[in-house]
Amino acid sequence: MKNALLLTCAVWLLCACGSKPASEIVTVKDFKELKSAIQQASPGTEIVMAEGIWKDAPIKFYGKGTADRPVTLRAETPGKVFVEGESFLHLGGEHLVVSGLYFRNGHTPSGSVFQYQISKDSIANHSRITNCVIDGFTQLNRWERDSWIAFYGKHNELDHCYIAGKSNDGATLMVYHKGNEHTNSYHKIYANYFGPRPRKGGPRAETIRFGGSETSMTPGRITVTNNYFEACNGEVEIISDKTRSNSFTNNIFYKCEGSLVMRHADYTTVDGNIFIGGDDSDFYGGIRVVNTGHWITNNYFYKIRGEEFRSPLAIMNGIPKSSLNRYKQVTDVVVAHNTWVDCKSPFQIGVGQNKASASVLPKSEIRSAPPIRTTIANNIIYNTQPDDSPVVNHDDMDGIKFKGNVIANGGESYAESEVLKSVDLDMKQVNEWLFVPTNQQEALSAVYAGYDFERIEQDLFGADRKDQNQVGAVVDLARAETFELDRSKYGPSWFTPNQKQGTPTVHNATAGNLSQVLAEAKDGDVVALSAAVYELAEPLKIDKELTLRAAGDSKPQIIYTGPAGTPAFELHPGGVVRLQDVAMSGQEGQLAFAPLAENMSSAYKLFVQNSEISGFDFVLKASKGSFADSITFTNTSIKDCKNGFVLAADEKGDYNAEMVTFEACAFENVSQNVVHFYRGGYDESTIGGFLTLRNNTFTRCGAKDASKVLIKTPGIINVHLLNNTFKNNPVELVALLWGAKNNLHQGNTVVSSGEIKVEEQRKLDLLY
Amino acid sequence: MKNALLLTCAVWLLCACGSKPASEIVTVKDFKELKSAIQQASPGTEIVMAEGIWKDAPIKFYGKGTADRPVTLRAETPGKVFVEGESFLHLGGEHLVVSGLYFRNGHTPSGSVFQYQISKDSIANHSRITNCVIDGFTQLNRWERDSWIAFYGKHNELDHCYIAGKSNDGATLMVYHKGNEHTNSYHKIYANYFGPRPRKGGPRAETIRFGGSETSMTPGRITVTNNYFEACNGEVEIISDKTRSNSFTNNIFYKCEGSLVMRHADYTTVDGNIFIGGDDSDFYGGIRVVNTGHWITNNYFYKIRGEEFRSPLAIMNGIPKSSLNRYKQVTDVVVAHNTWVDCKSPFQIGVGQNKASASVLPKSEIRSAPPIRTTIANNIIYNTQPDDSPVVNHDDMDGIKFKGNVIANGGESYAESEVLKSVDLDMKQVNEWLFVPTNQQEALSAVYAGYDFERIEQDLFGADRKDQNQVGAVVDLARAETFELDRSKYGPSWFTPNQKQGTPTVHNATAGNLSQVLAEAKDGDVVALSAAVYELAEPLKIDKELTLRAAGDSKPQIIYTGPAGTPAFELHPGGVVRLQDVAMSGQEGQLAFAPLAENMSSAYKLFVQNSEISGFDFVLKASKGSFADSITFTNTSIKDCKNGFVLAADEKGDYNAEMVTFEACAFENVSQNVVHFYRGGYDESTIGGFLTLRNNTFTRCGAKDASKVLIKTPGIINVHLLNNTFKNNPVELVALLWGAKNNLHQGNTVVSSGEIKVEEQRKLDLLY
Repeated sequence: MKNALLLTCAVWLLCACGSKPASEIVTVKDFKELKSAIQQASPGTEIVMAEGIWKDAPIKFYGKGTADRPVTLRAETPGKVFVEGESFLHLGGEHLVVSGLYFRNGHTPSGSVFQYQISKDSIANHSRITNCVIDGFTQLNRWERDSWIAFYGKHNELDHCYIAGKSNDGATLMVYHKGNEHTNSYHKIYANYFGPRPRKGGPRAETIRFGGSETSMTPGRITVTNNYFEACNGEVEIISDKTRSNSFTNNIFYKCEGSLVMRHADYTTVDGNIFIGGDDSDFYGGIRVVNTGHWITNNYFYKIRGEEFRSPLAIMNGIPKSSLNRYKQVTDVVVAHNTWVDCKSPFQIGVGQNKASASVLPKSEIRSAPPIRTTIANNIIYNTQPDDSPVVNHDDMDGIKFKGNVIANGGESYAESEVLKSVDLDMKQVNEWLFVPTNQQEALSAVYAGYDFERIEQDLFGADRKDQNQVGAVVDLARAETFELDRSKYGPSWFTPNQKQGTPTVHNATAGNLSQVLAEAKDGDVVALSAAVYELAEPLKIDKELTLRAAGDSKPQIIYTGPAGTPAFELHPGGVVRLQDVAMSGQEGQLAFAPLAENMSSAYKLFVQNSEISGFDFVLKASKGSFADSITFTNTSIKDCKNGFVLAADEKGDYNAEMVTFEACAFENVSQNVVHFYRGGYDESTIGGFLTLRNNTFTRCGAKDASKVLIKTPGIINVHLLNNTFKNNPVELVALLWGAKNNLHQGNTVVSSGEIKVEEQRKLDLLY
Repeated sequence: MKNALLLTCAVWLLCACGSKPASEIVTVKDFKELKSAIQQASPGTEIVMAEGIWKDAPIKFYGKGTADRPVTLRAETPGKVFVEGESFLHLGGEHLVVSGLYFRNGHTPSGSVFQYQISKDSIANHSRITNCVIDGFTQLNRWERDSWIAFYGKHNELDHCYIAGKSNDGATLMVYHKGNEHTNSYHKIYANYFGPRPRKGGPRAETIRFGGSETSMTPGRITVTNNYFEACNGEVEIISDKTRSNSFTNNIFYKCEGSLVMRHADYTTVDGNIFIGGDDSDFYGGIRVVNTGHWITNNYFYKIRGEEFRSPLAIMNGIPKSSLNRYKQVTDVVVAHNTWVDCKSPFQIGVGQNKASASVLPKSEIRSAPPIRTTIANNIIYNTQPDDSPVVNHDDMDGIKFKGNVIANGGESYAESEVLKSVDLDMKQVNEWLFVPTNQQEALSAVYAGYDFERIEQDLFGADRKDQNQVGAVVDLARAETFELDRSKYGPSWFTPNQKQGTPTVHNATAGNLSQVLAEAKDGDVVALSAAVYELAEPLKIDKELTLRAAGDSKPQIIYTGPAGTPAFELHPGGVVRLQDVAMSGQEGQLAFAPLAENMSSAYKLFVQNSEISGFDFVLKASKGSFADSITFTNTSIKDCKNGFVLAADEKGDYNAEMVTFEACAFENVSQNVVHFYRGGYDESTIGGFLTLRNNTFTRCGAKDASKVLIKTPGIINVHLLNNTFKNNPVELVALLWGAKNNLHQGNTVVSSGEIKVEEQRKLDLLY
């Protein structure tokens, strides 16, 4: 009895010591009060920012808390404290917590929004930013570089934040590794919602990047776990790890046009991640592997259709004795117990092999070193429809040990049984994207026991493998069936990402009120035009998503009479215009469509269907720094214009549009630059833009083009000319295609229009 | 009382569980019995090899022991079991112990002597080789490559072994890192005696090497502690670490002509090592730093006089974005609390900077990236005589933070106080090489508190720094005074390295018995020759160290009459001849000195003083694979010979002699190849050979030399022509020197002998 009492006392004392002492709470209403409160804070202080809009607030939050008594900076009501204008939040010191702030309607003047360092002499450690939002806080110009979140120091955290809408240059989240103060950092990034990051065009648009090649020898020991990534489409790398010994576990990548890339990383743990793609894009990516010692286990891939660098699993070729910033050989990697469902050619071995380019690239750029000492084992490929080439060998697979992998290939058997054994699988569809083996079956029982495989203790959903191990990412159907993709578990509890309104409103507009109707329409609305003549004396401003279409069967006529050098449709950042069944004409000096001349902070989109365009100086002309995510013209005639589509305003690897498509259009008498889509310099890690010309006719075009080329695409990676008719165009070449870079032509009819020429290799200036 | 009894029982039980069960002991007498015993061994088995010589024993010791009950292979009596001939010992399995074996008089036919792997499928883990010797177990030819000790697997140990006398190609001890089975290995190498390894000439003669550049991204976590290295002179790297996260602590490097080098290593711990040099060589080295993250603390250096790559502290310049096998930039290194006593220019920053070679080397070879983010702090430089240049800046030191370093410079003050503060120090000489501050003094009290310096908890001798911290390697004189360099603590307890006999015996020889006297003389003996004529009809065999000198004041005359193509003195592996006050003549077709035509497994030395040599076809001609450690001719005339010294039998970076010196010699009428010392190919990490010509006269030499050059030294790194007289030599050039590579001339008189030409840069084929 006496002992029991003593024990109780001891437990009570223990609890008492562990509990937090009462805090001092300081509520601040303006920046001056905030500064003062920060200066006076001591361990345990809670600084409370009052509700409202804080404009132009460059917050330097320096403090020294303790593990038990941090210094806290929080919103009076989470989500009701808006930080806008030229603002940032930089931390310095120890044991700080920031919570509940909402950054929007602005941008940082300092290179970062959240930064775990005020200066080199004021680094933050053991500090946490939680429950915050940064939404659309992007620079005015796309080429201005920043990173919204910049990690320095050690043991810092970012959790339950929503981060979306960065469209300018620079990774969204950077972890810096320069100096012993910033390595072996054990940072944690968890339970965040990384919302849409639009296609940028060119490199430096990762959602997360760790370090750079110059610090690739430094360890991070950073954990990225349980985050949700949605439409992170900035570039080919969603995550670019350029340091060592980090882990990426239990994240969900939902329809992201990029990959998780071990760019300069070694000894990375990639476990239990889910990659969800779909039929709506060929660019959803998986995992790309470079370097040494990674363990890639328990990952699940659904409808990942990316190719080459964006393959579901891309094991790269390296450069022999690679320089620090290029491609080291893959060695000592393990890829085990993953599942690919309805992916396109999921195993891609030797990606990046470019021996054929030896004549145009220096030796130090030739990726001729295939992966070695690598094990790919106990994986499932499951296809509901047969895949002709589940494995693509780009060079030499002898350095890879394939063991215990199975394929159920939509009923067809696969020949290379040493790589993948053909089996029948009994799979249950648990939800839209999750297919799981009905428990324990013979076809999955031959588990290969590779070196150190004991460490793969659990499956994708945390089920113990010990007594029920089998091939693939999931061993326990019952447990898998309890899994739910609940977006509300990611990011701040108080925040729900913008959802499009249900049904768009349809507005009718007359010639007199068109501009006003557009200005008043809501994002996503439709403006119906009657079959009248709409004479416009100034540009229509498109700063949201709008559809302009004929109200009835006959085409409305838009006649643009504005000043020379101005466009009928002026596209603003984020503007989307869909033009349907409209006839539009202009005069000398005018443009049909154009982005703003500057401050095009984010991309625009342009869709034109069943329309007629004539009489303009330019149909579309890009400005420097502008970027079109998509330009699609369908079943439209383009006639009697001086220039067609000029997307050639940028240099050095940047380019002005990602997806450019013309289908069933009729080009007639466009004097020059029918299409001029340009990208300067060579950076093989970027894989755009895309130009598709299908079923179009080109007649009497290009007469005044000095280049004597009709379709000009220098430096563009993907150009497809399919089933077009080129007739009586006074040029020497229809196009000069770059064979090695997915430029191709098929089924075209060329009459009195020169020829289509393919140059297999092309010599360009390297960008790095 | 009851409680006390219970406690006693518990302790007794604990001990009982920890003690080893009785072992099965199997004594074996021949190789067949040994094989059989190995096959039948089980946990706890002790296989005992009977005393005697085991010839041609390729031992594959496979077994599976446990931590408590290893499988043991041991000598019946330690040191009385000799393994000879074509033999090796390879281990495979778990928990093996080998003890007491003595490998001598032979070589391995397999690439290694001790190997912790039998095959790729039979790797050893948790296995130990202890208390063994490998002495002179070197290949017959110098160019045949092996490594005596080859580590594979994990958690293996080598301790209390004596390893010496390797003269062939290949690191003495290698740790292999190819594959996850062999990385993160936690091997331990401790309490060993690494005895003399002679100068090899060229690379691949390290005493210890970890991995290679191709596995430089892999961690080792290997400990090299408390070993003794003596005269490990194989090449410029005593230890070449090419992997990550290893530690070198408390080792003693005694008169080793090389350095501890972080060649491709990152995050190395170098703590508490002692480097003892002396006045007798300019090649004793210290620590050379490449790459990232090393902590170099508590080390002590005495009379380390090496330069450039062998500097006491060499912080290298890197190559920007270096390829994997070249030189990465130094970053994030800490050099703190070390002491340099009477060293020459101890701080060398930017070693290897070679911007001036940009015209002859590819860009990818130019070391133009200076060290960055590096701290050099709290170090002592103590000189009893002033050093003009304690710090040598080869490029740019801005990336280095110098803090708290002091210098006591033999009474002179040093100007650059930001790098080194001039102080007076009160130092006590504890022994021949150890100088320690008499305790706590003002000049050492300003300790800089760098980032994470708390981890430097102790000093060189294990004294706690907490309450008595000060600048330098030693904080506690009393504790330092208890330190004793006791060689018997290293290597096997039963073994003492060969000691030279005290006084050499002097033998008298007549013309009739000279060969026989030489054969019977002991290593180190002296043979006195009377002033007679010694006519020799066959070569004198030199396979040990012998001095031949005049017995009195008059020179004995050696007349060689042996067959054409044979030498008067035939140098065997390890042979050393000292010739003093002798006249020697030969005839056409004969050589004065030559090594064996093949199987020159180790180096020879040749010293000639006050002698006369005439009438030979060659004075000295090297054979392929032969190597002279030293060739020194002093005050000797060389006359009427067809060829002089031809050291030009090897290719690809190997060369035939290290130190070649002529002082006060008279060369007259030597028709060609007066000196031809050659090294082909360029490998900048090797820094030999050395040719010194001082105060000699050359008259009427080189008449028949097709090259029209008198002194030919292509590819030789160090050539010094000082105060010689060249007169009436019918050549175009006295010498063509390589300015950038320590080739220089001064004070020479050149009359009718062409000129001395210096070419600053030279273009050579790279060897890597």
